[in-house]
Amino acid sequence: MKKIAVYPGSFDPVTNGHIDLIKRTLGIVDELIVAVVKDSGKKPLFSVEERMAMLKEVTKDLENVRIDSFDELLVDYARKLGAKTIIRGLRAISDFEYEFQMALMNRKLSKEIETVFMMPSAKYSYLSSSMIKEVVSFGGSLCDLVPKVVEERLKEKLAKK
Amino acid sequence: MKKIAVYPGSFDPVTNGHIDLIKRTLGIVDELIVAVVKDSGKKPLFSVEERMAMLKEVTKDLENVRIDSFDELLVDYARKLGAKTIIRGLRAISDFEYEFQMALMNRKLSKEIETVFMMPSAKYSYLSSSMIKEVVSFGGSLCDLVPKVVEERLKEKLAKK
Amino acid sequence: MKKIAVYPGSFDPVTNGHIDLIKRTLGIVDELIVAVVKDSGKKPLFSVEERMAMLKEVTKDLENVRIDSFDELLVDYARKLGAKTIIRGLRAISDFEYEFQMALMNRKLSKEIETVFMMPSAKYSYLSSSMIKEVVSFGGSLCDLVPKVVEERLKEKLAKK
Amino acid sequence: MKKIAVYPGSFDPVTNGHIDLIKRTLGIVDELIVAVVKDSGKKPLFSVEERMAMLKEVTKDLENVRIDSFDELLVDYARKLGAKTIIRGLRAISDFEYEFQMALMNRKLSKEIETVFMMPSAKYSYLSSSMIKEVVSFGGSLCDLVPKVVEERLKEKLAKK
Amino acid sequence: MKKIAVYPGSFDPVTNGHIDLIKRTLGIVDELIVAVVKDSGKKPLFSVEERMAMLKEVTKDLENVRIDSFDELLVDYARKLGAKTIIRGLRAISDFEYEFQMALMNRKLSKEIETVFMMPSAKYSYLSSSMIKEVVSFGGSLCDLVPKVVEERLKEKLAKK
Amino acid sequence: MKKIAVYPGSFDPVTNGHIDLIKRTLGIVDELIVAVVKDSGKKPLFSVEERMAMLKEVTKDLENVRIDSFDELLVDYARKLGAKTIIRGLRAISDFEYEFQMALMNRKLSKEIETVFMMPSAKYSYLSSSMIKEVVSFGGSLCDLVPKVVEERLKEKLAKK
Repeated sequence: MKKIAVYPGSFDPVTNGHIDLIKRTLGIVDELIVAVVKDSGKKPLFSVEERMAMLKEVTKDLENVRIDSFDELLVDYARKLGAKTIIRGLRAISDFEYEFQMALMNRKLSKEIETVFMMPSAKYSYLSSSMIKEVVSFGGSLCDLVPKVVEERLKEKLAKK
Repeated sequence: MKKIAVYPGSFDPVTNGHIDLIKRTLGIVDELIVAVVKDSGKKPLFSVEERMAMLKEVTKDLENVRIDSFDELLVDYARKLGAKTIIRGLRAISDFEYEFQMALMNRKLSKEIETVFMMPSAKYSYLSSSMIKEVVSFGGSLCDLVPKVVEERLKEKLAKK
Repeated sequence: MKKIAVYPGSFDPVTNGHIDLIKRTLGIVDELIVAVVKDSGKKPLFSVEERMAMLKEVTKDLENVRIDSFDELLVDYARKLGAKTIIRGLRAISDFEYEFQMALMNRKLSKEIETVFMMPSAKYSYLSSSMIKEVVSFGGSLCDLVPKVVEERLKEKLAKK
Repeated sequence: MKKIAVYPGSFDPVTNGHIDLIKRTLGIVDELIVAVVKDSGKKPLFSVEERMAMLKEVTKDLENVRIDSFDELLVDYARKLGAKTIIRGLRAISDFEYEFQMALMNRKLSKEIETVFMMPSAKYSYLSSSMIKEVVSFGGSLCDLVPKVVEERLKEKLAKK
Repeated sequence: MKKIAVYPGSFDPVTNGHIDLIKRTLGIVDELIVAVVKDSGKKPLFSVEERMAMLKEVTKDLENVRIDSFDELLVDYARKLGAKTIIRGLRAISDFEYEFQMALMNRKLSKEIETVFMMPSAKYSYLSSSMIKEVVSFGGSLCDLVPKVVEERLKEKLAKK
Repeated sequence: MKKIAVYPGSFDPVTNGHIDLIKRTLGIVDELIVAVVKDSGKKPLFSVEERMAMLKEVTKDLENVRIDSFDELLVDYARKLGAKTIIRGLRAISDFEYEFQMALMNRKLSKEIETVFMMPSAKYSYLSSSMIKEVVSFGGSLCDLVPKVVEERLKEKLAKK
């Protein structure tokens, strides 16, 4: 049976840490759906459409990756797709506890869906979308931290502000 | 001398994890005052009166439990009640540090009042009022996580929105 | 391509927490090799053969599980088996850091092999082989914590001492 | 009903941190039994009798404290004494996880006995019996860290070596 | 060569914990610039000018300390000053991860500037500017936690509200 | 005044992570004494003399670094050298608590000596002397993890066993 997994997140915007994780995940699943959360409570910098467009652009050469978005309980969304696995990255202890609480709650809501944790490359362990936005807002350089296309959109977006 | 303890919190709304902790605490104190914090900085879903009503409903069969609210320094409130003990639940490491800082500050503010930490049942370790609200807002089922009366009020409240 | 994973450990002895993890892993891989580490530095209670025998007994009804042992670098062992994935359970923060250091070292030693972290059931989060041995040595009951066959072997072993 | 609690530990030797915790606990229980673990796996510096003698000496002016030792499952020992509460100190995160695993295991072994966590004074947060022994072995001064009688016994003991 | 260091922060307001850290740092650097972050995202209680005035007042007897503010990338600011060292205090684990991510990002942005971590006195480990504001807003006493001048300004500021 | 610092440790053997930290520290002190602890309780693989010889070899091109060993209280040793600063590396949370307890104890033993924490390069965050020994004992390759001279000595040493 085809192994389908969902990698949910805000991706506001996608970083090289996310891309690293997507590539690692492709080694263990047959198809990966990268799914932008429509309403995560936080006010995003990019719209859902912009975030999906950037994700599509940076994953266009990867087979078996699909970009989508969702606006419902994650386990309900996964069930509709036929996905049995939720992928989450763990960079640090502070991720760990929140992620475990989410995973235990999701297991409570749906017994058939399992959360699997992947570890990004150590060189991206300090990388988060919010730090990226802070650095760009002060004019710092992002080489090696986000794809070129994302750096351009970030500069456009922050120039308008 | 009668041992009185205060269990302060937002209880927005009360969960089965809170009720589990209340029951465990009754084994070590003579009277427990469950005290809703009036202004905790966060915008609550339920009013103080609604939160107290739900707490009263779900603890009505427990002896030696009283529901109250307060709007002053916790140690001043405890002193007025004749309570020498503050009860706090520890679910996870992330609780631990905040709780320790609060307990050390309270000890600084009042030497006679001691904070005591209780551990909820492992099956509630992933449970928080904010997760409950998120799950209900997406139509997820809460069986076993909150009392029936709380589930009903949550649905009413979120339907109005 | 068949997805093969290795779940290495001491299994001295196997607990219900390990079995829970094995079952969860079967949902995401095609074949799972549970591999007893021959020399882990610690003096074990059971021999490698005894540990493998107990693992075989308790997994005999599970398809796609094989029991083995190894005495070399984990990544070399995995490569020989054609396994691309190492499975590790994360119960707590203290696991987290050691496991991450191991996973990063293994990634350094072999780029093709990825470590994947699974979360056992919350009800086994406090369970470890060393606690099991301590409880049995004092005559405590192990119901629900280890399979019946393991409880018997533990009592035989500790009676001989 | 009289509230009896057990505070188990190695006390090899008792420090001012332990004494601080004993005093704080007396505010919430009617009787406290400080219980030396007979066999904790580690090779102790002082015999059980020596450790009990020091504990008796330093608590002789405290009412409602009794010194004892035990060599069985903690929950069985507590039950015999009629104690419903186990007292444990939490100094740091590293304590936290071990203590939680122990408390969850004890709850599994006996539903009626609850573990309660107390926080020592911040000024003793860095204090452990093993650090005390290390400092004394190099001739460092222990003023404020252990009672005078303990400092003397430590020097006698380490001089003989 | 003169060793210049920057100690950046919100200082909203400065506490005795900050002052303790400033004094400790003077033992390892030749000049220390305490630098108020102009825009940290959070809405401050005191203006940048008020925060700088309080810092100047409480450090007026310390040699080799200068008070400044900045509104750019921290590494760019440090470079202009000729500072090679960023000073940060670590009170607790929760500080640790955020601080490490910041330090790794700053190292990425500028290889020549090193972050150095200092530990405040244990008696200030529970102290944060936000707790200070909470205690004052409820009329609690701040003796020993902030300098007298800061306590006065806090009371003036909160009385106006 | 000349700023002298001590970097104490087992260095059994020195790794590229240690060397990275030594180089970073040279940016903030005038002289660094790398000091091998003579008796750390653990049975070492290399003798004190062998460990010092390797340290001398790998730091021979660094100015202002001196290699030494000590067998007394660290603060007494630092005082004799005229060192006011102890340097420690923090790689992970598990380091953090032990290091903080040590630093607080050292501050108790000597008020004039301050501990300063440095962060190694992220690429060495998973590196420890004990993992190095484990990898070599199984014939794994150490390229980039230890200097060439250390790899040779490790192979000689482990071949003799």
